[in-house]
Amino acid sequence: MTAIKYKASVVRTEHFNAAHRLGVSTWSDEKNKRVFGKCNNANFHGHNYELEVKVTGVVNDETGFVIDTKELSNIINQEIIERFDHKNLNLDTKEFKNLNPTAENIAAVIYSILRDHIAAENEIKIKLYETPRNYVEYPA
Amino acid sequence: MTAIKYKASVVRTEHFNAAHRLGVSTWSDEKNKRVFGKCNNANFHGHNYELEVKVTGVVNDETGFVIDTKELSNIINQEIIERFDHKNLNLDTKEFKNLNPTAENIAAVIYSILRDHIAAENEIKIKLYETPRNYVEYPA
Amino acid sequence: MTAIKYKASVVRTEHFNAAHRLGVSTWSDEKNKRVFGKCNNANFHGHNYELEVKVTGVVNDETGFVIDTKELSNIINQEIIERFDHKNLNLDTKEFKNLNPTAENIAAVIYSILRDHIAAENEIKIKLYETPRNYVEYPA
Amino acid sequence: MTAIKYKASVVRTEHFNAAHRLGVSTWSDEKNKRVFGKCNNANFHGHNYELEVKVTGVVNDETGFVIDTKELSNIINQEIIERFDHKNLNLDTKEFKNLNPTAENIAAVIYSILRDHIAAENEIKIKLYETPRNYVEYPA
Amino acid sequence: MTAIKYKASVVRTEHFNAAHRLGVSTWSDEKNKRVFGKCNNANFHGHNYELEVKVTGVVNDETGFVIDTKELSNIINQEIIERFDHKNLNLDTKEFKNLNPTAENIAAVIYSILRDHIAAENEIKIKLYETPRNYVEYPA
Amino acid sequence: MTAIKYKASVVRTEHFNAAHRLGVSTWSDEKNKRVFGKCNNANFHGHNYELEVKVTGVVNDETGFVIDTKELSNIINQEIIERFDHKNLNLDTKEFKNLNPTAENIAAVIYSILRDHIAAENEIKIKLYETPRNYVEYPA
Repeated sequence: MTAIKYKASVVRTEHFNAAHRLGVSTWSDEKNKRVFGKCNNANFHGHNYELEVKVTGVVNDETGFVIDTKELSNIINQEIIERFDHKNLNLDTKEFKNLNPTAENIAAVIYSILRDHIAAENEIKIKLYETPRNYVEYPA
Repeated sequence: MTAIKYKASVVRTEHFNAAHRLGVSTWSDEKNKRVFGKCNNANFHGHNYELEVKVTGVVNDETGFVIDTKELSNIINQEIIERFDHKNLNLDTKEFKNLNPTAENIAAVIYSILRDHIAAENEIKIKLYETPRNYVEYPA
Repeated sequence: MTAIKYKASVVRTEHFNAAHRLGVSTWSDEKNKRVFGKCNNANFHGHNYELEVKVTGVVNDETGFVIDTKELSNIINQEIIERFDHKNLNLDTKEFKNLNPTAENIAAVIYSILRDHIAAENEIKIKLYETPRNYVEYPA
Repeated sequence: MTAIKYKASVVRTEHFNAAHRLGVSTWSDEKNKRVFGKCNNANFHGHNYELEVKVTGVVNDETGFVIDTKELSNIINQEIIERFDHKNLNLDTKEFKNLNPTAENIAAVIYSILRDHIAAENEIKIKLYETPRNYVEYPA
Repeated sequence: MTAIKYKASVVRTEHFNAAHRLGVSTWSDEKNKRVFGKCNNANFHGHNYELEVKVTGVVNDETGFVIDTKELSNIINQEIIERFDHKNLNLDTKEFKNLNPTAENIAAVIYSILRDHIAAENEIKIKLYETPRNYVEYPA
Repeated sequence: MTAIKYKASVVRTEHFNAAHRLGVSTWSDEKNKRVFGKCNNANFHGHNYELEVKVTGVVNDETGFVIDTKELSNIINQEIIERFDHKNLNLDTKEFKNLNPTAENIAAVIYSILRDHIAAENEIKIKLYETPRNYVEYPA
């Protein structure tokens, strides 16, 4: 077998820790408490977010890479980890000033940020663990 | 970025332990032993089943949820874990009285039970680990 | 082999999520920032804490248990998870009002709380993961 | 640094699946149900047992091994996995005919079997996961 | 529910260790060093490769299997693990004599080898972990 | 509870990849092949080494740290990861020119290097995974 044009996916995992609080600003305290329960705690709680970024595209027939994982790791660290690690998502980031920081919304925001930094011919997909037993994927 | 209509997947992991025995009732003992090997042991063996349920749908633009993971966890516990945990699948459950309890069939049964309890506009998908090195997905 | 008196250890893992901020109240902002870095973020950050509690003692020669893991799980949930899960350790708990919530101190506090709820003839040991790559043990 | 006499520990992980039922034969059904709950289910339940065997001793100054992990793996497979894998511990094994198959007792039995197959100058220790969240160690 | 014709996926994980070196033979040393960095180390480095093989097809309505995982495990071991385990991919295998052994290329080669040994009506997909934080999928 | 003098352990995990070959230079090829099997492959094989470094000592009553995990991570990276990552242990490092690079010997060498960089009043212990199913500890 010699190198041929084919598509593959490359996945890189990075990690950040953050505090957040779930809630809808236009709802009453009672409704927020009923819908979001402990996740609405006024003083925040937090998570270790485990982030997988999948990049799908044609494998370069010289390098054998879709994308170099060192380069992918650098992009994720500069654009996402620097922005969200050891932050309070509600108070310290502009992205979640007016957007409820659920795992679904965090994943969609991460996708939207990374989309500008990965070659347009490659697809990207986000998998975000909020706890070892809960994760989301975007796009579906 | 403000909240917009988009689709995402939410995945919740739960756990149950069960005994089972593989075999086809209309086959001879010899054929069952040849095809299923140790899994046909007359006195049963068992597994820790790690169950992932993925729900895919539109993210609610107020809550930021496809489905609240607490609600999803409650549904899985009430419908699946209560039914199968610490049970002998062949002897203690009506679902596997006449159906060989392979991981494929258990996943399909779990799908069929959960389908009635998740909003019809959301897709669901089952991933079931039978051991750390073997798992199945349904639908494919 | 028939049942004999012997000692063993039983370990149960539970999980909680919390926000916290590291810092020493009597230090200047500059010193706190220099020593604790991002962990001193004024608006808090957070973690998924994975908690292992080890109980060591004589195995009961009738039950074959050092301690029933269901009972151990109940104690940990009532005394620790209820207290710390989805909380801001600095603001929402009396234990860390005047104690820096490092992993070392959290583990020592958990030990001290659980010590009163486990039979005195059994030893206990705490292992606390703050991230997948950092954990502490108490007592050493 | 050249090779010198020193002690180290080598740990090998193997895996088996089994069915079991907890209970004390001389107790009433009511007492067994009260003490062992779902684990007393008459038709058995089961687990994926993850087994770690630690061997501690002097590192051979020629080979650099305490024990070759291939040899350790072979011993565990011949003596333990062959004996318990895909078995009903209560019905299919002589070891648990009269001994309640709790994780504590299974670990002690495994220790006792392996003790005869590992050089006497080496210590051994058993760690047995019954579920991802429950494990035991023997000796303590 | 009785057995019906439906499709599912079965996934089996196996493991191999190998040495490799990334580089393009027609490039200068400077370009190879610039593009592949430490992965171009002249004396090789190595990895524990964790390999997941997914087989998707119709579940046999008698056995309840897409494919018996014991059979799938045997095929992977005979065709892949025997070939690559404890080998230097660049020097010891014909597959990577003229093909850069990136994870993308290794996954595509494994796919191509296994394709001949799995029933043609079943789809297969390869997931290959090069490190705990980097993996690839083929086909995309 | 207020801060008191007590001892705890802090554990940090880091990662490196390397190639190696097991063998004793003064032995015949036949004996090396018989004792070390596939690990004696002339062209090397490799591993992802997962390294846990445990530091045990008195918790500082101001900071609440035995040692800052950022500082511990920096030391491990500068002294160990820089030295061994993406290297051929037999050919590229002075430590294993004349020492068989078994996991036992690698762990002892890592201990000996780190011992000079951690405060003498603190104990250190090395846990080194060579594969997900094999690890060593030093000192025992």
